Amino acid sequence: MVLGALEAGGTKMVCAIGNEQGQVLERVSIPTVSPEETMPQMLSFFKQHNIEALGIGCFGPINPVEGTATYGYITTTPKLAWQNYNIVGAFQEALGCPVGFDTDVNAAVLGEVSFGSMQGLDSCIYVTVGTGVGVGVFTGGRLLHGMMHPEAGHILLQRHPADTYKGKCPFHGNCLEGLASGPAIEERWGAKAETLGDRREVWELEAYYIAQACVNYTLVYSPKRIILGGGVMHQEQLFPLIRRQYQELMADYVITPELENLNRYIIPCSLHDDQGILGCLKLAMDALEKFLARALQHLGL
Amino acid sequence: MVLGALEAGGTKMVCAIGNEQGQVLERVSIPTVSPEETMPQMLSFFKQHNIEALGIGCFGPINPVEGTATYGYITTTPKLAWQNYNIVGAFQEALGCPVGFDTDVNAAVLGEVSFGSMQGLDSCIYVTVGTGVGVGVFTGGRLLHGMMHPEAGHILLQRHPADTYKGKCPFHGNCLEGLASGPAIEERWGAKAETLGDRREVWELEAYYIAQACVNYTLVYSPKRIILGGGVMHQEQLFPLIRRQYQELMADYVITPELENLNRYIIPCSLHDDQGILGCLKLAMDALEKFLARALQHLGL
Repeated sequence: MVLGALEAGGTKMVCAIGNEQGQVLERVSIPTVSPEETMPQMLSFFKQHNIEALGIGCFGPINPVEGTATYGYITTTPKLAWQNYNIVGAFQEALGCPVGFDTDVNAAVLGEVSFGSMQGLDSCIYVTVGTGVGVGVFTGGRLLHGMMHPEAGHILLQRHPADTYKGKCPFHGNCLEGLASGPAIEERWGAKAETLGDRREVWELEAYYIAQACVNYTLVYSPKRIILGGGVMHQEQLFPLIRRQYQELMADYVITPELENLNRYIIPCSLHDDQGILGCLKLAMDALEKFLARALQHLGL
Repeated sequence: MVLGALEAGGTKMVCAIGNEQGQVLERVSIPTVSPEETMPQMLSFFKQHNIEALGIGCFGPINPVEGTATYGYITTTPKLAWQNYNIVGAFQEALGCPVGFDTDVNAAVLGEVSFGSMQGLDSCIYVTVGTGVGVGVFTGGRLLHGMMHPEAGHILLQRHPADTYKGKCPFHGNCLEGLASGPAIEERWGAKAETLGDRREVWELEAYYIAQACVNYTLVYSPKRIILGGGVMHQEQLFPLIRRQYQELMADYVITPELENLNRYIIPCSLHDDQGILGCLKLAMDALEKFLARALQHLGL
């Protein structure tokens, strides 16, 4: 199979060609400007390769719910040029092939359970902590949708009593993204996260918020693994701090075999930051499969 | 069909006979003492009626994950007599019929989407606020399971700045159940919830915690409706307070058609506190259907 994958981000569009084994054969990165400027470049790349299907993991919010009026749209994003843009429709029309569509973080968790060390797991979440914070949710063997997709990076948290920072989120004073994203770290401490590696207090506080969110994710999703990725999680010293605070905050309330060893429960991504693009390949495969199933049904086969 | 339903609670076991239309034809209530004392009474009731299948909505924590070693057990409950008790196995052995099994709150949400005003909805949660706080989650047309079931009544919340109450939960100082359950209200204010109806400050604070939790549930599950039930929610003045505080806390971050009118989004249960027992009937139906499907497959049909 020749599959297209698009990891659509706020700053760049990573376009790739790959196959059903999760091999990426070629990839290019195109700056995210506006649909008028950026779409033709992406289309030209995918057209060159005659792809059979495309999978898009997209910055949000988006509408990933098939059968609704604005399915396939990027909706209320602060990136004004892309607001209410029917990205799925544009690709379908120009490429004439099936298009799969979900959030960037849902694509990432799908990549991990399809091609990573979590392969075959039916319940798993992927939390990215970077410029923003987002959560991809795979439960009961499927990506979670409802009215729309999870926006679990914005859950409201208990502030640390010693933390007087007002938060970076324009909507919520005390949500995870506002308190723990890369820009929040930078604004709170007056320096970029990657230059603060040796400041213990920075990472203790960061771990407090991430751990508190992870406790809540365990309580709501009951996931069999929590994968932490994104730029901030490149600070590997965070993992033991998060696990320790998670244990304290959970206080043995939930007891399962999975939680016995947190080193195996709260883990880094296994695909070296390729989880997103590989998840997009899987979205393409799933879209193609669904398309074929519908076609067969139509033909009465 | 003659179906059995068991709403297994910490103080009473409600046993009922009903059918696939969601009609309850007979019901008895048996005090929850110990398996030795309570099981024979329940068995005798169900045996009398020759049920074709049984559905159990059970107090927790339980193991509802089929295929695992302790499937069908009540696990780490503080009710010691029932700890690690294989309730599904006991009924299967004694009755020789298929048994469906889930949490009481998952049964309740299933009742609402199967027989209530939420019929046909594929994404909906049921939050009970009473002696305890629990959340049943129906998403993608199925009840949510993972390692186990959601324990979303214990999510950690931001304390209200004016609230100095230490919380009723022995595990977490600031979880929803610890701050907002019936016993928490009683301990904080020194009187039973039902006698505090005219104390505005009681319900404003209660609404603050429930609203905060509902915001987080919207962010994590993206449910199409949030149904609030349980004894505390009989204080109907809570609904408008919760909706107002929800709106403030959400701050228009998620924009969907469902959220345009919160009177239709955050709603009371529609089955007059029968949602649990009716959900158990549906669990029985589903168990029977699964049993028949397996039998047919076995026979190669």
